[in-house]
Amino acid sequence: MSAFEDRTRRCQQRLSAVGADAAVLFPSTNLFYASGFREEPGERHLFLVIPSDGDPAFVAPEMYDAQIRDASWVEDLRLWSDGDDPAQVVADLAAEFEIRGGHLLVDDTMWARFTQDLRETLPEATFGLASEVFDDLRMRKDDAELDSLRRAGEVADRVSVEIRELGEEAIGMTETELADEIERRLAAAGGEEVAFGTIAGSGPNGAKPHHRHEDREIRRGDPVVLDFGASVDGYPGDQTRTVVFAGDPPEGYEEVHETVRKAQQAAIEATEPGVPAEEIDRAAREVIENAGYGEEFVHRTGHGVGLDVHEDPYIVAGNETELEAGMVFSVEPGIYLPGEFGVRIEDLVVVTESGCERLNDSPRTWESL
Amino acid sequence: MSAFEDRTRRCQQRLSAVGADAAVLFPSTNLFYASGFREEPGERHLFLVIPSDGDPAFVAPEMYDAQIRDASWVEDLRLWSDGDDPAQVVADLAAEFEIRGGHLLVDDTMWARFTQDLRETLPEATFGLASEVFDDLRMRKDDAELDSLRRAGEVADRVSVEIRELGEEAIGMTETELADEIERRLAAAGGEEVAFGTIAGSGPNGAKPHHRHEDREIRRGDPVVLDFGASVDGYPGDQTRTVVFAGDPPEGYEEVHETVRKAQQAAIEATEPGVPAEEIDRAAREVIENAGYGEEFVHRTGHGVGLDVHEDPYIVAGNETELEAGMVFSVEPGIYLPGEFGVRIEDLVVVTESGCERLNDSPRTWESL
Repeated sequence: MSAFEDRTRRCQQRLSAVGADAAVLFPSTNLFYASGFREEPGERHLFLVIPSDGDPAFVAPEMYDAQIRDASWVEDLRLWSDGDDPAQVVADLAAEFEIRGGHLLVDDTMWARFTQDLRETLPEATFGLASEVFDDLRMRKDDAELDSLRRAGEVADRVSVEIRELGEEAIGMTETELADEIERRLAAAGGEEVAFGTIAGSGPNGAKPHHRHEDREIRRGDPVVLDFGASVDGYPGDQTRTVVFAGDPPEGYEEVHETVRKAQQAAIEATEPGVPAEEIDRAAREVIENAGYGEEFVHRTGHGVGLDVHEDPYIVAGNETELEAGMVFSVEPGIYLPGEFGVRIEDLVVVTESGCERLNDSPRTWESL
Repeated sequence: MSAFEDRTRRCQQRLSAVGADAAVLFPSTNLFYASGFREEPGERHLFLVIPSDGDPAFVAPEMYDAQIRDASWVEDLRLWSDGDDPAQVVADLAAEFEIRGGHLLVDDTMWARFTQDLRETLPEATFGLASEVFDDLRMRKDDAELDSLRRAGEVADRVSVEIRELGEEAIGMTETELADEIERRLAAAGGEEVAFGTIAGSGPNGAKPHHRHEDREIRRGDPVVLDFGASVDGYPGDQTRTVVFAGDPPEGYEEVHETVRKAQQAAIEATEPGVPAEEIDRAAREVIENAGYGEEFVHRTGHGVGLDVHEDPYIVAGNETELEAGMVFSVEPGIYLPGEFGVRIEDLVVVTESGCERLNDSPRTWESL
């Protein structure tokens, strides 16, 4: 049995356990996880229907025939051509699988146009979200997944060191040029593709936590938030460092950087099996609040990482999920002073039997190397 | 009034006309089109709510405060922090806008996790899709949009010529190396970012219409399907050529290529205002069917192109939309012989008062330059 089929069978056990009749997946990491077939969301009907019992089937445009057969262990393909009514193909399959009036778990990222369409095609069905069964399956990584995540961490580490070594050379580069340089080096270091939009936020741009990069030139003394990663085997790297390439940083920067660093360390030290996820957030937040920057730490401390860059467990107040060995997440506190600068430090960690292991190991200081 | 506000006001007129009380947009091209703020879909609640009357408001994570204010004319921001309940922010806004029991048009690409959440937060509301008002607004491009699309076409043309000039040099490259080369040249030619996953399908891989690229080496005589483009001002280029870089093509290839070329030309010649979109599909399909390859033309002839690479009007059987000046779409018939090779030729066209204008102008022959 392939790893993908094995995952599908475990998914079916959970479907039965939660009283659902089928999962209806849309191109997503869940669909890849279960089938081995990878595709981007698109405007065509492309579903994997996993009944709680029996074999799953794809509903797919005819043009995907060869691709799906190459990539997936799933043999049952219900193909439709442009000009056909794909809703009818779905209706026929639902009748055959006897799930027309069932409880169906749709992929969490399925587009509204398809969920609306399913509601019209299957008016007797009730709907929930596939995360109800997949999040739990995917949250604990197996050894092969951890191996991929470690290698993605090494790629990010290597590039982090190389970029800091630019020093004076980075002064005068635009954020976009620096981001391009990072992405070239990620590819050269063995990354498959950029795991998310590379962030190079200099000076006041660093105070916008989700700023990416623009044509602002990096100046002497600018703190620069560098947040990037590339994937290995589909598993992403994700690491942040905040660096001053040359010159003296602005007033107050050193204290802010040290506060974030201590907050990150406190969160790492709090990480071990049995601890609720929200406690890790609290450990980081406490350090930042005690330093008087509580209002400037405007996001949660971290997010799980796997086939999705953001997945369970979220490291946020209110998440009482108890950590278990094999869970992987980011620890990334930050302080953002609008109009001035921002500081964020991030590593991925995997929970071990006795604590945690960092998947990143590049310097966390702010000085150029 | 900014162009973005003007579009929002026209959207509001259409909301009233179709009897909807508000549009609820998720990070998407619709959201950018109306607000000027661009972001990728993510797992956090980030909506733009446009009531049919009055001013729109964002519901957004606090971390986006500065970014949204920089990018958008919309002044009303309802921010929430990690640890808050964003559903409550939505509920409060809906009460204030008096749309709790209204008919709401959600973005077509809104994730199921958010549509499910809206249904729970607003149990009295009914739901439709935002395409009901946006597709029509966005289908007719204005001069500024056409200018961006023309420049994106020139970028794709330039790279198409450069890549064909590789000739013998391309033999022995892997598809992935060739795709990387294409993407580097698109950036150098002025493209902002790759508009979609670059396709370099050699030999039998070209017979899978949505194959991208892999580590297969290009051999002498291989037909190679090259489908790529980069965006300018957010508007994509999209062009396909099928090329043999060196050596003699397989038996039957020249006839297939000529058939596709004639089919594409027939579709272009059929394009003018007042003609139903499906007639353009029929014009191309007829040529391919008459040549005996009807079963091997497994997709529609084209798709509209604008802020989305795939949007209205779709050039497909059953679409009776009458073409109008300003509409932009692809014309891309293909023939796919599984296990052997594929051929596709694609240009973007804009409908003019008297016919159409191609936005691409690179050679459509199969020989290397």
